[in-house]
Amino acid sequence: MDLKNFLSEKKKIVDSALKKYFFVDKEEPNIINTAMQYSIFAGGKRLRPILCLIAGEICGGLSKNIIPTACAIEMIHTYSLIHDDLPAMDDDDYRRGRLTSHKKFGEAIAILAGDGLLTKAFEIMDSKVVKEIALASGTKGMVGGQVEDIITSVHSIQYIRLCSESYGGQAVNSEQKLKEKLEYIHVHKTAKMIEVSLKVGAILANAEPKKVKAISDYGRKIGLAFQISDDILDIIGDKKKLGKKGSDIKNNKLTYPSVYGIEESKNKAKNLISNSKKDLKIFGRKAIILEQLADYIVDRNY
Amino acid sequence: MDLKNFLSEKKKIVDSALKKYFFVDKEEPNIINTAMQYSIFAGGKRLRPILCLIAGEICGGLSKNIIPTACAIEMIHTYSLIHDDLPAMDDDDYRRGRLTSHKKFGEAIAILAGDGLLTKAFEIMDSKVVKEIALASGTKGMVGGQVEDIITSVHSIQYIRLCSESYGGQAVNSEQKLKEKLEYIHVHKTAKMIEVSLKVGAILANAEPKKVKAISDYGRKIGLAFQISDDILDIIGDKKKLGKKGSDIKNNKLTYPSVYGIEESKNKAKNLISNSKKDLKIFGRKAIILEQLADYIVDRNY
Repeated sequence: MDLKNFLSEKKKIVDSALKKYFFVDKEEPNIINTAMQYSIFAGGKRLRPILCLIAGEICGGLSKNIIPTACAIEMIHTYSLIHDDLPAMDDDDYRRGRLTSHKKFGEAIAILAGDGLLTKAFEIMDSKVVKEIALASGTKGMVGGQVEDIITSVHSIQYIRLCSESYGGQAVNSEQKLKEKLEYIHVHKTAKMIEVSLKVGAILANAEPKKVKAISDYGRKIGLAFQISDDILDIIGDKKKLGKKGSDIKNNKLTYPSVYGIEESKNKAKNLISNSKKDLKIFGRKAIILEQLADYIVDRNY
Repeated sequence: MDLKNFLSEKKKIVDSALKKYFFVDKEEPNIINTAMQYSIFAGGKRLRPILCLIAGEICGGLSKNIIPTACAIEMIHTYSLIHDDLPAMDDDDYRRGRLTSHKKFGEAIAILAGDGLLTKAFEIMDSKVVKEIALASGTKGMVGGQVEDIITSVHSIQYIRLCSESYGGQAVNSEQKLKEKLEYIHVHKTAKMIEVSLKVGAILANAEPKKVKAISDYGRKIGLAFQISDDILDIIGDKKKLGKKGSDIKNNKLTYPSVYGIEESKNKAKNLISNSKKDLKIFGRKAIILEQLADYIVDRNY
């Protein structure tokens, strides 16, 4: 089976599993269920849950033991998009060509839909991996990345200075600092969740520690490459493909192309992908799909 | 020991345990740690974690097994206050006489501080009770209560109609409906978290199911009484005690006094307290502190 068919099959499994989590009962207001579904079924690629399932399969696990956690990871990803889009954050009106949650339901419901999805994720995931996923998605992971992303936006430079004065934070005051900050943001905002998706798939398949480590290393590298390639697409991709072209530019975001230029950014992504494949050796031929996926991440749209 | 001393001792234990969770390391931006601490150490009574600890003790559990989960519950409570205070929600500038998180740190950091606290809560709690706590705090619990609270505010009546048309929700269109809605809001927004605080304390002490049930029943009743008494204090309490007098009135909130009047509201709270004590019989003399606490909840300020 070629990669696209494989991903499409896996996506169907994830989508149909996700649907089961959104039956309303009398304890739950309709509006919040509707808002959560609106964002969960907004055309996402399901990259993270698919990676989680593949990791589990490669390590010999049973899908049925991994699917709830894979769905939980997609809920966390979706909550982060809803909150990132809010007026106080990136202030985006559209995502993938559809109105963002706060434009559709109002800010209050959007905030609560995010809170609800994050909480539901912890309700449904396997209790064995709660700590791993909380660490990857919290202030030492994804939330931390989002914080730096927000306060490092060029239009917020004054705010950063305020922070360094009041709270001991560091203003971005040199080229080297800027590069470190950029890597921090991308690793934490994006790579940590991709890494943990693979890691917990392996853990739930009872993989031995060195396999868990290898697949986590692979995940961190493709995760960073994925975000670098997203930065590039934000500039050169056409609007249809991302549905939110130029949002980074509008918000003066620190991106790989803005710091390294497009060519060097592409090279960095390709190097990461090439290194990520070395981590897969321990899995032998079973990991071919992850090799293809790694290539797909940088080649997908340019 | 009298109740006030007892509570003050327990509060010290909770405060000192909470402090340990807020050391910054290089993975975490200073500003978000500062914002989370600002709200966590804003003078809360620690009612929920204290109830969790007491439930554990009464059921013969060891404090050290329960403290992390008790702290996690306080983090969830704190995140809910930060998000509730946001401009899109209750739009409060002050809480307990101090600036709210978004007034102090800006809206983006306030939203992320809430997200960070919710996530950290799941990182630190005992994995055995993750599902219970997620259910009580999510869209079938606290978040659900907050949703109804927001969309039922009198100034949002137009919004409710929009919801009933578009999403099959129900507008508040009769006295009976109004009362049901009010009870739904208070039970879900407040009582469920108080109930689960006691419940998981008992679970972590390996209490037998009928004791877990009894202490949960007690918790739901004092939880509702607590919120009714808060409604009353919002009207008659002095500003010093709550630091946010009249916020409900400003926001046209559905409250017990606004629906039943102050005297009937007081009676309802007292009846709940009196019934809650019956649930404690199974614990014998060990539960005296919970009886006193129940009385304290309705008597504390009026």
